This record gives sequence, structure tokens and C-alpha cells, in this order.
Amino acid sequence: MTLKLREAKPSDMESVLGLIKELATFEKEPDAVKVSVDELINHGYGKDPAFKVFVAEAGEIIAGMALFYPRYSTWKGLSLHLEDLIVKEDFRGKGVGTALYTKVLKYAFDHNFKRVAWEVLDWNEVAINFYISTGAKVFSNWRVAQIDEEAIEKFIENVNS
Amino acid sequence: MTLKLREAKPSDMESVLGLIKELATFEKEPDAVKVSVDELINHGYGKDPAFKVFVAEAGEIIAGMALFYPRYSTWKGLSLHLEDLIVKEDFRGKGVGTALYTKVLKYAFDHNFKRVAWEVLDWNEVAINFYISTGAKVFSNWRVAQIDEEAIEKFIENVNS
Repeated sequence: MTLKLREAKPSDMESVLGLIKELATFEKEPDAVKVSVDELINHGYGKDPAFKVFVAEAGEIIAGMALFYPRYSTWKGLSLHLEDLIVKEDFRGKGVGTALYTKVLKYAFDHNFKRVAWEVLDWNEVAINFYISTGAKVFSNWRVAQIDEEAIEKFIENVNS
Repeated sequence: MTLKLREAKPSDMESVLGLIKELATFEKEPDAVKVSVDELINHGYGKDPAFKVFVAEAGEIIAGMALFYPRYSTWKGLSLHLEDLIVKEDFRGKGVGTALYTKVLKYAFDHNFKRVAWEVLDWNEVAINFYISTGAKVFSNWRVAQIDEEAIEKFIENVNS
């Protein structure tokens, strides 16, 4: 299999959304994906791009993608966040994930980012062991917290009342 | 105590770095802070600001700060990350943290961000219970992974050799 890694174009966003939905379905949350192809194009290719994507192309097929964007560490400075690294089911176990991961780390290094961060599910031992083998640290004492738009609105209404 | 919440100016970055270092010392990592006042000013107030900061002012003193920046959720779209919410030790338990947290959530809501995310240490039950009481979710099944510049360099060298 010949793999070509390149930066994604707006015309790839349909395939990218397909991969995002494939992963959400695998995680049993198919309805959680609210973004559309148009939004991905607007958010990724507008005046202030919110993210960058690398795709892995096998022939005519987008076999995988890595979506990332800058963050800021108050200890280290400019850093990157790897939001999604998704490999199409038929292409798993062929080195696509490692190639995309390596591409992102090279991008980070070349652009002088001081750290790359991401999140991984605790039961995904294969992934966790791979990350550790590359020199990454996987922390067990940090919890991810999130509040979504509906809960924010409710919280603000309560504060004001 | 009268508290004034406002957006931070470049001249506040010295106080902001003081708070960052105070927290790092509390977490027993005083040497982990590599950023300088000049870097905070360059990164926060340049052409492409990497973050935004709200400060809570009690008289002449910066009693606390919240530092945040945009992220991108491939499910929800544009989101915010609250990197640090730090209250100076003498000012804890006086509502400074809640005021800053509320200010960030209002900013997110007003600017149409679909989610606010952050990380919290698992032993910090007071904080976790507060976040949950505001409608946030705290996930126990996600692990935070990070690879820093030195490890990235080593990994890339190994791939190339």
C-alpha cells in the first residue's frame, strides 16, 4: 500500500467528516456530531483557521486524518493539540496511524511548538502503550471537564436571577 | 472586598506570571515554568494572540486570573479551553474563582462557543464538586497525554534513522 500524507484541502472535508462520524458511531455516539461539511470548510479555511488537518491518501481513498490546532501552556508556551487521529476501519494495522502521528510531531518540531497534547480513552491500552513507546506521558491524575452550550446558558441564567 | 473583573493588559503579565509560578510552586514544580513576561506579552498581544486573560482586581492587587483560548471540537465546532484559573492564596474562599469562571462562561456564550473545556486534578474534590454543580461534566475515562519538545526530537531522530 502506498500512502501519501498531505495537508487537507477544503474538498477533503467530506471525507474528513465521514471519518469523524465513523469514530462517533464506533464510540456509540453517532448523533453527537453536530458539525457539517460547510462548517468544517468555514472553520478550517477562513480568515482565522481554527484547525489544520493532515490526511493519509491510499490511492483515491482518504485512509486516515489528523486534526490539530495550537494551544497555550502557561508553563511551556506555544503548544499543539491533536484533537483527532482517525484511521478508516479497513486501513487499521497498516501503519497509517503511526505515519499521521509522526507527521504531526514533525510539524510541531519544525514550527517550534514546545509540546503536543491529546486525550485517549483509558481502556485503549494499545494506543496508550504506543504513545508511551514514543516518549509521551499519559497522566492518570488529570480529569477532563467540559460544559456545553445548553449547560452554560442555564448556569448564566441562574447567576443572573 | 470590591472585585473588578476586566481583560488583562500587557502590563498585567508580570502579575499573571506571578500567579502561574505560585500555582507551580504549590504543585511542587516551581522550575517547570519556562515562559517569561516578554513571551506572555508577545504570545498574548501579537498579531495572532495565542490566548486571552481575564484578571480579578481587588484594589491595586491582581487577586486572580483566567487564561483561555479557542479549541475545536470535531463534534460541536468552535469551543474554548480554560487553561488556568488561579486565585492568589490570600484571596481564596472569597468568590474570586467563581467570578472568573462565570466571566469565562459568559464570554463563551456571548461569542457563540459551543463548549468550554478544562482539566482538573482528580484529588481536587472541592473544585470537581463545584464544576459539577454548575452543569459541567467531569470525565473519568479520558487520559491526558503529552509529549514535550525533547521527546519529540528524540522520536523524530529514531524514525529517521
